Amino acid sequence: MESLESRLKDALCGITDVDHLVRKEAEEHTSRLVMPPRAMGRLHQVWERLCAISGNLQPVLQDRAVLVFAGDHGVVREGVSAFPQEVSLEMIRCFLRGGAGINAISRQVGASVHVLDMGTASRLEGSWSEEESRALQFCRVAAGTKNLARGPAMSREQAVQSIRQGFEAASKQIEDGARLLATGDMGIGNTTPSSAIGCVLTGRSVEEMVGRGTLVGDEGMRRKSQAISAGLAVNKPDAGDGLDVLAKVGGFEIGGIAGEILAAARHKVPVVLDGLISTAGALIAASLAPLSRNYMFAGHVSEEPGHRFMLQTLDLEPLLDLGMRLGEGTGAAQAMHILDSAVALSREVMTFEQAGVSCG
Amino acid sequence: MESLESRLKDALCGITDVDHLVRKEAEEHTSRLVMPPRAMGRLHQVWERLCAISGNLQPVLQDRAVLVFAGDHGVVREGVSAFPQEVSLEMIRCFLRGGAGINAISRQVGASVHVLDMGTASRLEGSWSEEESRALQFCRVAAGTKNLARGPAMSREQAVQSIRQGFEAASKQIEDGARLLATGDMGIGNTTPSSAIGCVLTGRSVEEMVGRGTLVGDEGMRRKSQAISAGLAVNKPDAGDGLDVLAKVGGFEIGGIAGEILAAARHKVPVVLDGLISTAGALIAASLAPLSRNYMFAGHVSEEPGHRFMLQTLDLEPLLDLGMRLGEGTGAAQAMHILDSAVALSREVMTFEQAGVSCG
Repeated sequence: MESLESRLKDALCGITDVDHLVRKEAEEHTSRLVMPPRAMGRLHQVWERLCAISGNLQPVLQDRAVLVFAGDHGVVREGVSAFPQEVSLEMIRCFLRGGAGINAISRQVGASVHVLDMGTASRLEGSWSEEESRALQFCRVAAGTKNLARGPAMSREQAVQSIRQGFEAASKQIEDGARLLATGDMGIGNTTPSSAIGCVLTGRSVEEMVGRGTLVGDEGMRRKSQAISAGLAVNKPDAGDGLDVLAKVGGFEIGGIAGEILAAARHKVPVVLDGLISTAGALIAASLAPLSRNYMFAGHVSEEPGHRFMLQTLDLEPLLDLGMRLGEGTGAAQAMHILDSAVALSREVMTFEQAGVSCG
Repeated sequence: MESLESRLKDALCGITDVDHLVRKEAEEHTSRLVMPPRAMGRLHQVWERLCAISGNLQPVLQDRAVLVFAGDHGVVREGVSAFPQEVSLEMIRCFLRGGAGINAISRQVGASVHVLDMGTASRLEGSWSEEESRALQFCRVAAGTKNLARGPAMSREQAVQSIRQGFEAASKQIEDGARLLATGDMGIGNTTPSSAIGCVLTGRSVEEMVGRGTLVGDEGMRRKSQAISAGLAVNKPDAGDGLDVLAKVGGFEIGGIAGEILAAARHKVPVVLDGLISTAGALIAASLAPLSRNYMFAGHVSEEPGHRFMLQTLDLEPLLDLGMRLGEGTGAAQAMHILDSAVALSREVMTFEQAGVSCG
């Protein structure tokens, strides 16, 4: 166990800061564009951050990959979700057939979708076409987590393992040419561990943090809040130790997402976060390697009330606010359009001098 | 004059409502998509509105055109802008050379850019390539408006003429195949008439409405507020008569934008609004033909404080909020990505039945 954990810590030592000098240069270029000062608002900031991440003024965002981490959760036994657990598996099939929300949005932004089974309750079976299996990877830590309301969701070793799996899968994508990553999730019941992580790492109360997830009723909401409260009380996660938080009240797909983000930071590739579950992973990543925050973009803010607080803790402003709450990576993928426009603006818009326009 | 105005009124009588029955059908389709109820938030609503506009469940958004209406403003003599008036003309050259913000964003969303000179202070000169001239149309009402702080910006006849010009230009685009329009503007000083229109048609005070435009200083802000207050006092525009408001405190490009929107509604084509200036045009359009509102999408909310109030009056929720305040149509064009994703979702995502996923 210690060996795995110390190897993870070694990998995290390789995460260095973005290039603030390049960011300054980028800001100067922005000031010369033929428009009033910073008139394209956040788009300028996005481009400047992309420059700081890539270390030059020509950030390239092709190719791009959405990693959808799937996992199941023992806490569903507390009645926290409106959907039965087999839906995790059914949705994975749907991803592989290209028929889910994330597939449609990813096609729009030219991203490939990769599904990682981090630990669903039942093994995937059935026959897949060759193409379908290419989009599926098995990184199973266990057949679902334990019930976090009654004890730790997983062991510390499993927490490390889930992060490693995500780190390696994302590193592989980057080796294969990905220059922009997005995080995604699938897991029935996973707003419960995500909200629990949110409580621990933002310091907000369960009441502030908890939302309806996939639209459970009032009774379900109450069960969910109770499960989180019980989980925090019984496990006492240590807010100063991201691995402890992940192990005690997290999930395997959340660990995978944290690993993806850490790999992005390690390889200086921007990563766009999706909603509540992805941001729980981001909080774990930032807890393990604070500099990883500088490689994250918040794709959107979801309808889950706690998401906003989690983004605030990370000091990230969401790019979109469209009332989405699907997960799968859809909010992250949709925001890639904005990154593209930010790059196009800075590359294609003339300077005042080039355009021969009088300065203000 | 009466003849022109009555011909406009005739055209407006051709504007009928969107198909609310088709919208209901679209909502039913949404409920069958393999995701929790309305989990993609505003994207569902966007698609359902597009269905209601087109009258069927297969709305098509290709081709698409951004119309950038340019005009100059006599009120610049009050010192309301940080940029000299010749910049309107210089920016038009920049649009035609493809080097402005709107060109970059339009290329991203696959839209063509068309510049309409509605009345710049000095005539465009110089030699253009054939391609450049194809993107420029002359619809000049006059060489800039009069100073609205001292009297009417234009005659009622000119107001009608500016709307007609925009209506005809947009109708021509639709005849040529455009199935999605965006509004855009260029005109030094044009946040002043737009804010004035905003005051009249939202009932908000000058203090609530006025922002910094292209970042004038405190002194400029005061001059701008004073110019608007003086213009409202001297002209007494009739809030019940959109033509009166446009004539007294508007601009030629604002009339053109209103005309574009009315043409979109007349031909049942969706139109995406840009920021403050475009929304001033939208308020004029809605005042002349209230049903035109159902064909509008608010592309974004700009940094100009009044813009939010104007959108509220139109009961439109902006799709983007990125702190943009460039105009040119950039916020509208950027939002086309969201319309594309909304259509892709409903066309490509499987139903629960197709995907074989258990319902919640």
